[in-house]
Amino acid sequence: MGDGPITFEISASSDDCGARAGSVTTPHGSFDTPAFMTVGTRASVKGLWSQVVADLGARIILANTYHLMLRPGAALIAEMGGLHAWSRWNRPILTDSGGYQVFSLTDLNEVHDDGVTFRSHLDGALIHLTPEVSIQAQNDLGADIIMAFDDCPPAPEDGGAAPSAGAVEDYRARVEQACDRTARWLERCRRAHRRDDQALFGIVQGGVDLEQRTRSVEQVCQHDLPGYAIGGVAVGEGFEGLRHAVEHTAPLLPEDRPRYLMGVGYERDILTAVRAGVDMFDCVLPTRHGRNANAFTPQGPLRLRNQRFARDASVLDPGCDCPACAGGYSRSYLRHLFQSGEMLGPILASAHNVRHFQRFLLDIRRAIVDNGWSLIRRRWPVLDAPT
Amino acid sequence: MGDGPITFEISASSDDCGARAGSVTTPHGSFDTPAFMTVGTRASVKGLWSQVVADLGARIILANTYHLMLRPGAALIAEMGGLHAWSRWNRPILTDSGGYQVFSLTDLNEVHDDGVTFRSHLDGALIHLTPEVSIQAQNDLGADIIMAFDDCPPAPEDGGAAPSAGAVEDYRARVEQACDRTARWLERCRRAHRRDDQALFGIVQGGVDLEQRTRSVEQVCQHDLPGYAIGGVAVGEGFEGLRHAVEHTAPLLPEDRPRYLMGVGYERDILTAVRAGVDMFDCVLPTRHGRNANAFTPQGPLRLRNQRFARDASVLDPGCDCPACAGGYSRSYLRHLFQSGEMLGPILASAHNVRHFQRFLLDIRRAIVDNGWSLIRRRWPVLDAPT
Repeated sequence: MGDGPITFEISASSDDCGARAGSVTTPHGSFDTPAFMTVGTRASVKGLWSQVVADLGARIILANTYHLMLRPGAALIAEMGGLHAWSRWNRPILTDSGGYQVFSLTDLNEVHDDGVTFRSHLDGALIHLTPEVSIQAQNDLGADIIMAFDDCPPAPEDGGAAPSAGAVEDYRARVEQACDRTARWLERCRRAHRRDDQALFGIVQGGVDLEQRTRSVEQVCQHDLPGYAIGGVAVGEGFEGLRHAVEHTAPLLPEDRPRYLMGVGYERDILTAVRAGVDMFDCVLPTRHGRNANAFTPQGPLRLRNQRFARDASVLDPGCDCPACAGGYSRSYLRHLFQSGEMLGPILASAHNVRHFQRFLLDIRRAIVDNGWSLIRRRWPVLDAPT
Repeated sequence: MGDGPITFEISASSDDCGARAGSVTTPHGSFDTPAFMTVGTRASVKGLWSQVVADLGARIILANTYHLMLRPGAALIAEMGGLHAWSRWNRPILTDSGGYQVFSLTDLNEVHDDGVTFRSHLDGALIHLTPEVSIQAQNDLGADIIMAFDDCPPAPEDGGAAPSAGAVEDYRARVEQACDRTARWLERCRRAHRRDDQALFGIVQGGVDLEQRTRSVEQVCQHDLPGYAIGGVAVGEGFEGLRHAVEHTAPLLPEDRPRYLMGVGYERDILTAVRAGVDMFDCVLPTRHGRNANAFTPQGPLRLRNQRFARDASVLDPGCDCPACAGGYSRSYLRHLFQSGEMLGPILASAHNVRHFQRFLLDIRRAIVDNGWSLIRRRWPVLDAPT
């Protein structure tokens, strides 16, 4: 597709799976796909200023509408020139709708057909979030890609175990309701959306119920949109649940539009979804784990507080070119930073983890072009590690 | 002087005051004087990795022996190749003796003629710190300049007010005792010092008692040392107390050795001391104030949490070339980072403040060469701001 605020071009497709490599061009430049979006919840990738984030290879950042609308307010950011100018990130940005955070961060929330009512986690103020309010906030923030306001129910309580007939029925009813609401809210989002320099993506729901996934795809794809997202995963359904949902849903989405799997994830989740035809990902893992002293490596994570690193002179990953690894900071020194509560520990581990995922996606894009899937598995043993 | 582990060369002296510009060359390179040493207490300048610190113009870092000997231990750092290799700072480093931190950070401490006994602020362990223990730790850490273990009494209780005769006598006795101990401990430090690639600086005590200052200078300068420090200031004596002590003491110290004023300070303190003939400074202000949302500017500090910055699109200081200012991050955005508890606020403010002091010292060195003291006052109005 070539019309509208963004264009998506596929440059290579895999021979033996649904994976494709390409690029998305936005009003603030382009990014290669499959892409991993680094999360900057409050218009800041935690611990890293925007030039550092760009140096780490990130080309698109995700910011959270929920947090920014509460503080400092979307209107203030609009007044300051929008997210790009204000956060000094002159590359693509995507904002989510805020719905997911309402469900996950607020104690008191009530979903109804008009929207969601909740209490601010900052000051307890009662807030009514609707498709119109979300789109207005996202228009104010000015991201290149904005997301429809959707109804995202949690995973079934039982996960993989055998649930009771009643629980199955309850889950199915809740998922069906979420799909219908999401479809109705998408219409309202489209009507509310006022900026032709922002691409509105629709979101497919349906949880781990594949029939509902099909139905939601049909509902959402009635709208000709510049991109489509798979929502309602990474909410506790486990790897197999995610795999089934994604492998079922991704191929149903239009081939010529970017497909975005929201909130995912670990290396194995990403590879699985790429092979199913997903083009975009986002996850807080790199920075959240970095702050918690967990460093990703191709061999698996390192828990840097572990005593065994006290005298370990090696860097996190000798193959990595991030400031921590290229800078020669040893595991011994990094452990010391975490044990001493020094800010620099989270900073360096976050920088490393952000770069880790960018390097992983770079290898994935090469594998798609070269059909080099076995090479990927050799270079990233973590993909076959027991979980 | 040209022998020993460091050399000090004076390249310019001021016509109308005691100020001199020069450079100190160490086994890890040289730094221009007057120099402001950025503090990296636990072998990390808080929030900034070593390459960033170098990019900000810092050429010598101060690390604290007290913190590092408690965690992770000086022997471990020696095993990892010493402070330079371990913290990835291949430029000059100075370590203090640990004495000052014992007095300021530990609740239970007892000074006696052999040394100081205190409880670790980390785990309550009883630790005996002596001249020999301090020098052993500093030999292990491997800094280019190490400091004698001294006895540093607090300022008189009353500060500038009229104290009672008893209080005056108590203070004088305590200061006299501190001078004598400091002199005896210096002898023990010299005997304990084992590395000829590290320069041991002596420390003059005497508080705000100018007679004691003179006596301490005589005691300490009996030793031919590569540098001399003025200790026992910035301990609560106020600007006038500091000024009197420094203007009295600095000229008494050997002209051909670097003079180091410990723990100082604000711009006005530094300028006053430079004009008295001081060459080296260190202070935690840039990073501590940065973490607390205070940004230094030539016009005076900005308290970034202030509501008046919410929509302020200007950078901290348009004349500054730090990542925050050159990166174009507005006061509005920086305020948001602090209000939201984002790590990036302290990081950017710390980077700015570190650069602020480097720029200030750069201007001071120029003023010494050009006799441009009035230009300094025009460029740095904070020097004449009411306090």
